[in-house]
Amino acid sequence: MEGSVCPSVSQIQRTPAPLAIEELGSFLAGGHKVTLSDRPCQRVKVARNGPDRIVDLNGDYITGQCYVQFARLANRSQTFPVMFWHGGAMSGVTWETTPDGRPGWQMHFLRKGYDTYICDAHERGRAGWSPFPDIYKDAPIFRTSNEAWALFRFGPEGSYHTAPANRIAFKNLQFPIAHFDQFAAQFVPRWTDHAEESMAAYVAALKKTGPIILISHSQGGNLALDVVQRVPELIKALVIIEPAAAPRFSQDTLAKAASVPHLFVWGDYIQDVPLWQGYRQVVDPYVEQLRAAGGFIDVVDLPSRGIHGNSHVPMMDANSDDVAQIVSNWIDSLSL
Amino acid sequence: MEGSVCPSVSQIQRTPAPLAIEELGSFLAGGHKVTLSDRPCQRVKVARNGPDRIVDLNGDYITGQCYVQFARLANRSQTFPVMFWHGGAMSGVTWETTPDGRPGWQMHFLRKGYDTYICDAHERGRAGWSPFPDIYKDAPIFRTSNEAWALFRFGPEGSYHTAPANRIAFKNLQFPIAHFDQFAAQFVPRWTDHAEESMAAYVAALKKTGPIILISHSQGGNLALDVVQRVPELIKALVIIEPAAAPRFSQDTLAKAASVPHLFVWGDYIQDVPLWQGYRQVVDPYVEQLRAAGGFIDVVDLPSRGIHGNSHVPMMDANSDDVAQIVSNWIDSLSL
Repeated sequence: MEGSVCPSVSQIQRTPAPLAIEELGSFLAGGHKVTLSDRPCQRVKVARNGPDRIVDLNGDYITGQCYVQFARLANRSQTFPVMFWHGGAMSGVTWETTPDGRPGWQMHFLRKGYDTYICDAHERGRAGWSPFPDIYKDAPIFRTSNEAWALFRFGPEGSYHTAPANRIAFKNLQFPIAHFDQFAAQFVPRWTDHAEESMAAYVAALKKTGPIILISHSQGGNLALDVVQRVPELIKALVIIEPAAAPRFSQDTLAKAASVPHLFVWGDYIQDVPLWQGYRQVVDPYVEQLRAAGGFIDVVDLPSRGIHGNSHVPMMDANSDDVAQIVSNWIDSLSL
Repeated sequence: MEGSVCPSVSQIQRTPAPLAIEELGSFLAGGHKVTLSDRPCQRVKVARNGPDRIVDLNGDYITGQCYVQFARLANRSQTFPVMFWHGGAMSGVTWETTPDGRPGWQMHFLRKGYDTYICDAHERGRAGWSPFPDIYKDAPIFRTSNEAWALFRFGPEGSYHTAPANRIAFKNLQFPIAHFDQFAAQFVPRWTDHAEESMAAYVAALKKTGPIILISHSQGGNLALDVVQRVPELIKALVIIEPAAAPRFSQDTLAKAASVPHLFVWGDYIQDVPLWQGYRQVVDPYVEQLRAAGGFIDVVDLPSRGIHGNSHVPMMDANSDDVAQIVSNWIDSLSL
């Protein structure tokens, strides 16, 4: 891939104090057993130069789990950890090194004294996925670079071109488009009808970690808005970066959600992309309902604060640290 | 899942000194652009409660990349980092927290002063995967719990049972079978004909990181034995935990491979599982060829050292730290 930067050899401009880490690790959460039968066996050479072996897809599978990777500080200064939920066709890589090689939001929040949990949702990344049509009903969908260019609001609809020099980006765009292919390499397949399974796995993860501050992105934001209606006691504060629409309330779940502080963050160029206008037309009334129910609900429109050029992935934009600072300031203001 | 332990709430028996971490992060390596055309468009509700949108699978994809996650120490005491390559149907999770919640080999080697790189191979975990039959030719295969029980040498062929109480484990087995489902939740789909693509991505990763010490497992060991024949200058030492067979040499590549110290590690019960006898029948002559070519080649059969009960995943067994210590002692002995 052109345009990739190796973080291990990039110049370090300044040397902040090291993180004191107690442990790095991970676990899988949620999931249940399913059993397949009546599938034909195959004889396959699985290992090169090894003997053939029978591959029998009949048997037990664990399906429905999510993956949770933790970094625990030895000297954490914050009471509650931060948990990160990525968006559609993405994985936990969202919160790691930016496509142009700078430290990501995980590093920002570790430096602020938070333990971190980075999740890969059910069926994404290290969570693995299950056979279809045996366990999952359908085939997944995939994200092209063409779609991503418009959907992430790097440039106008139709302005992606295979040749990078011919792509048209929005004026003042903060996303580092010279490293677009490093970003496109992060995409993972997704199924469109697994919201309930994804939420079940995330609830299982929350029950393992205990109460956290949840930072969510895009499709992960839509899920987060739903999960906080179900287990508000496990989410001390909820940050939603550009949610892809929003769920619905019942009267009971509205009160539950409104008991948790929410921060919504929006980037630039939304008026230029009809899909994002459509998502906001779902989210803005949702915000008003939360407020009417007495919730502590903040909305940051970055352009209205004079911060211009943010795409749909502000955690990867050139000003990613500035946006992270807005989020961490808001969390600080809650005095959790 | 039954039997899972949440590492965040498990009791800490002793408190070793914190790790001083300079940066945690990741990058994708390798991969190239492919373009699909002539696929029908779909109109899909991708976001719940959002407007439908067109999903057009025609366009550009990045395919063939691997994922590399790094932990860089502020006070590293070792010259060369350790890189980890997982086995078939696995991901980098192999090297993280054990299924019963103890620190994994990543933590062991960080504590020894090594920077670490944990990889997800091409098409596994966070590396993502590409549409088939458009980009990949075939469908993947999946690992059942039934297959894993025998293949990882937890018990005799056919001794897996859906009800845990009815499973028959090998005598003195070190694998924590009470947490088997946490292990089974780690499995990811795999394709059987992607060795060249996987190696290309790994070589791209090595070119980004520079020279490393490579610790590989099972299918990853088979790939590692091949890659060291191609870029010996980037692999200062090679540890192969239970390789699933081995590649072949040409006269030229034998000399290249023999220039790099190798440590092969084998667990217990191999004589009880014909598949593993078959793999060893490929690997043992490979070792002899390396030695005949003048290589510094060590083989540790754990049972012959009085260490009994190791499965195919010694990095997850109850004595995982002891096996890691054997590996790190061997690396120390090289004075790299």
